[in-house]
Amino acid sequence: MAKRKTSRKKSKQDFQIGFVGVGRMGANMARNLKDNGFNVSVVSDANTRAANALAKELGCAATKKLAKVTALSNVVITVVTDDASMRGIFGTSGDSLLVDAKGTTFINCATISPATHVQVEKRAEKVGASSLEGCMASSITQARQGTLYLMCGGRRGVFNRVRPILDALSVNLRYIGTAGQAAQVKALVNMVMNINTAGLAEGLGLGQSLGLDLKVLMNVFSQTGANSRVLETDGEDMVIRDHECYFSADHAAKDSGIALKLASQEGLNLPLAAASKAQYDKMKRLGIGGLDKSGIAELTFPGRKGTSKRKK
Amino acid sequence: MAKRKTSRKKSKQDFQIGFVGVGRMGANMARNLKDNGFNVSVVSDANTRAANALAKELGCAATKKLAKVTALSNVVITVVTDDASMRGIFGTSGDSLLVDAKGTTFINCATISPATHVQVEKRAEKVGASSLEGCMASSITQARQGTLYLMCGGRRGVFNRVRPILDALSVNLRYIGTAGQAAQVKALVNMVMNINTAGLAEGLGLGQSLGLDLKVLMNVFSQTGANSRVLETDGEDMVIRDHECYFSADHAAKDSGIALKLASQEGLNLPLAAASKAQYDKMKRLGIGGLDKSGIAELTFPGRKGTSKRKK
Repeated sequence: MAKRKTSRKKSKQDFQIGFVGVGRMGANMARNLKDNGFNVSVVSDANTRAANALAKELGCAATKKLAKVTALSNVVITVVTDDASMRGIFGTSGDSLLVDAKGTTFINCATISPATHVQVEKRAEKVGASSLEGCMASSITQARQGTLYLMCGGRRGVFNRVRPILDALSVNLRYIGTAGQAAQVKALVNMVMNINTAGLAEGLGLGQSLGLDLKVLMNVFSQTGANSRVLETDGEDMVIRDHECYFSADHAAKDSGIALKLASQEGLNLPLAAASKAQYDKMKRLGIGGLDKSGIAELTFPGRKGTSKRKK
Repeated sequence: MAKRKTSRKKSKQDFQIGFVGVGRMGANMARNLKDNGFNVSVVSDANTRAANALAKELGCAATKKLAKVTALSNVVITVVTDDASMRGIFGTSGDSLLVDAKGTTFINCATISPATHVQVEKRAEKVGASSLEGCMASSITQARQGTLYLMCGGRRGVFNRVRPILDALSVNLRYIGTAGQAAQVKALVNMVMNINTAGLAEGLGLGQSLGLDLKVLMNVFSQTGANSRVLETDGEDMVIRDHECYFSADHAAKDSGIALKLASQEGLNLPLAAASKAQYDKMKRLGIGGLDKSGIAELTFPGRKGTSKRKK
């Protein structure tokens, strides 16, 4: 049986794209879409100054009113900070993205808990809108260049409908499953990454304490069972204490926390994940949670802030 | 000033090589050297049957007497199980490799504590012998094929003297530093590897519990910050429960223990290393310490031996 074509493929000009949350990730995604010939209709952020500046740059509207974002757009990309913010912008009373939202498609790119994605999808569908989770496993540069690693969860039809936008944002696009499942995968990715990062910081810190040549040590790590992606991305930064933030310790703690909550719901005991979260939590307590995740080396290298040991 | 040549380069025929400890690693190293045209003079093992069988295969002597190994060899390669065994074969009284050992070179390939390497070097030099640590970061196949990752510690002159043997054993040969330093690097490699392995088992176990497609999950891991060498070597084994032993949980626990002891001496607190050691210790308590290190997934996948959770 031949497939019946139910609708023509969407083109760039079919989309009027609004953005809620234009911090470093959201702003750069908007810039990239604009560069790619998409219509960015409106931007909104709790930080009015940031929203206004970006609106000027992109030649679009800026607003604090969420209902106006929906009014000006048929697709709204949200990149907010946490579950509470997500529930706030998708509120069921007062100003909300859900006001007169029939036909609107929401693409939600913040790293939030899987349950919130499920909840937002339900609320959206109740008013005749659609919701797709778009979990990103990349950072600012990739957002700007449209080379995100983007994992999507939700209805396949919604995924297909906004596919041109997703393609423009990403170089690696994956449909994972139902709403919340992409966030689960993302939480697992970051949980494992955080464990590997914390472990690497311990290996290099002890190596430094023993007086080993850390260049040789990292080279040996790279050629053996100790090799990892974080060795490539964070190893040298740990040694030279370059903790400029790409992915903060605060975020690492949050994401490991999401994974541990899932584990607890599943009745699983994950001691490595717990130990790594405790380290990132310790960074927060020490006031260095804003450092890049590589800053965890400050807890394991002799003579640094988080260790009791004096510098040799 | 031109360098003075103090001795001609050694050739294969200059060496009479004895082996102490011919388990799976030692026996395969002996086979490889024999294949490469070296003289294997004698083999010795607490397991007499294993020593006799190998001696027959290689056409060399077998003995239980350590002094005889030294008498028949000018180079002795030792591959024993632990520190106590090392101190035993290099005993200062009774039957020992050090009896009439003047001029003998010992290459010690067991994974033991750095301090024991230093002690053995001292004892060897006291009787006019030489000692080199040769730490291996590879497994049985590499031993057989002469493709070991071999890190050496000791005097540079000793390293140079037995270089033809080391070259035949390894594809990756490194002079790390003084006696004990190669063992330190090895301990750090295995400590980090064990952490990454334990963390991977948690990520995959939770993924399974959540009902995610583990092939997709591993593929996402491989393309993101969660990637690691152990994902390549152990990921699938964890999923399909293929825990045929290449590197046992018992050994993992031992090696992490060596690293943690060093950390304790250095006054460093390494919570991830401690958590991973506790997991491998738990495997020992559950009677599954003989499984490959990938068997740690038995503690984190729902419904398996080490988890309280029932199979879904």
